[in-house]
Amino acid sequence: MRLYYSPNSCALASHIVLEEVGADYSLELIDFTKSEQNQADYLKINPKARVPALQTVDGIITETPSILFFLAQSFPSKNLAPLDQPFKLAQAQEFNSYLCSTVHVAHAHLSRGARWSDDQAAIVSMTAKVPENVGNCFQLIDEKMIIGPWVLGEHFSICDAYLYTLTRWLERDGVEREKLPNVNSHFQKMEKRPSIQRIIHYHIT
Amino acid sequence: MRLYYSPNSCALASHIVLEEVGADYSLELIDFTKSEQNQADYLKINPKARVPALQTVDGIITETPSILFFLAQSFPSKNLAPLDQPFKLAQAQEFNSYLCSTVHVAHAHLSRGARWSDDQAAIVSMTAKVPENVGNCFQLIDEKMIIGPWVLGEHFSICDAYLYTLTRWLERDGVEREKLPNVNSHFQKMEKRPSIQRIIHYHIT
Repeated sequence: MRLYYSPNSCALASHIVLEEVGADYSLELIDFTKSEQNQADYLKINPKARVPALQTVDGIITETPSILFFLAQSFPSKNLAPLDQPFKLAQAQEFNSYLCSTVHVAHAHLSRGARWSDDQAAIVSMTAKVPENVGNCFQLIDEKMIIGPWVLGEHFSICDAYLYTLTRWLERDGVEREKLPNVNSHFQKMEKRPSIQRIIHYHIT
Repeated sequence: MRLYYSPNSCALASHIVLEEVGADYSLELIDFTKSEQNQADYLKINPKARVPALQTVDGIITETPSILFFLAQSFPSKNLAPLDQPFKLAQAQEFNSYLCSTVHVAHAHLSRGARWSDDQAAIVSMTAKVPENVGNCFQLIDEKMIIGPWVLGEHFSICDAYLYTLTRWLERDGVEREKLPNVNSHFQKMEKRPSIQRIIHYHIT
């Protein structure tokens, strides 16, 4: 497999899970500072001009929740999702879906406001609301969603890789992780995982 | 099961799939014009103050991609998702994830801009960009994503219910469905399905 990624992006979640399952894979950097995501070669990989994208033997997969689920299903012995328990699996997918559709979107208004308005003053006003919006999302995650010690309870899962990835953005978002006890404790446990220690240098600029 | 819904919302997708699988379920209207989604009783069901939410025997599920997958997995004989084919299933999840995290979000800037800015002028400027953004999303769906005749090819799936739900918003979004041949043909096929004809009156105000 081949993972197309850029530093500081949500591609980290897929990268962590590739390490956790012990997949045979290579990495390809898409340099957003050179606008490589918009070049013709990459648009053939992902016409949405985003990362991550995962090249598999069958074809390309995009969208973090889909890549994470695919890896969990492709390496069932690693037990990274409750594949055969429909309600528990629904809780896992609900969590990942909330992260992609609400939490990541709240964060994206910090530096990607131009996606949703052409007016510079509007983009600045979106930036101002990010600490409140991301803060509210993480308050809910902290109080209601993390079962503990991992997101889904006793077992580490794909949800943990994804949560850790977005937790890393809190400082830029103006949200104090230390005031979120469950999120903070989860973050510290994640930092100790060998999978993350092996790869995190690819994701820091 | 019990589906909490409001008219004109993405809860329609879950409602269609409940009909398609022949589930035993009831409906509960959450009236957004009375701000019922913010009342204490409903926040116990879904603290995110959104619809849909699906009460099951095991507990509550939120987030459309999660509910749709849960129903497909709970009624496997209905064949509404390629559950045992990891790559094809990834394509299904990729499609639904794109709808929730990008397409629905592009649409939400039409009337929910106050989520991301407190400035009235900014909210107006977001509204102005919706036809372009939703138009670009649907152009991609039309050209690259619908395999045909259904989203995933020969078999009707959960993706079709979700796409139809967001296609219904195009008129409000200022996007001409008739200029999107594959989306338009998909929409017309969906309108003929008995499942939709039985329930659509709940979703129109």
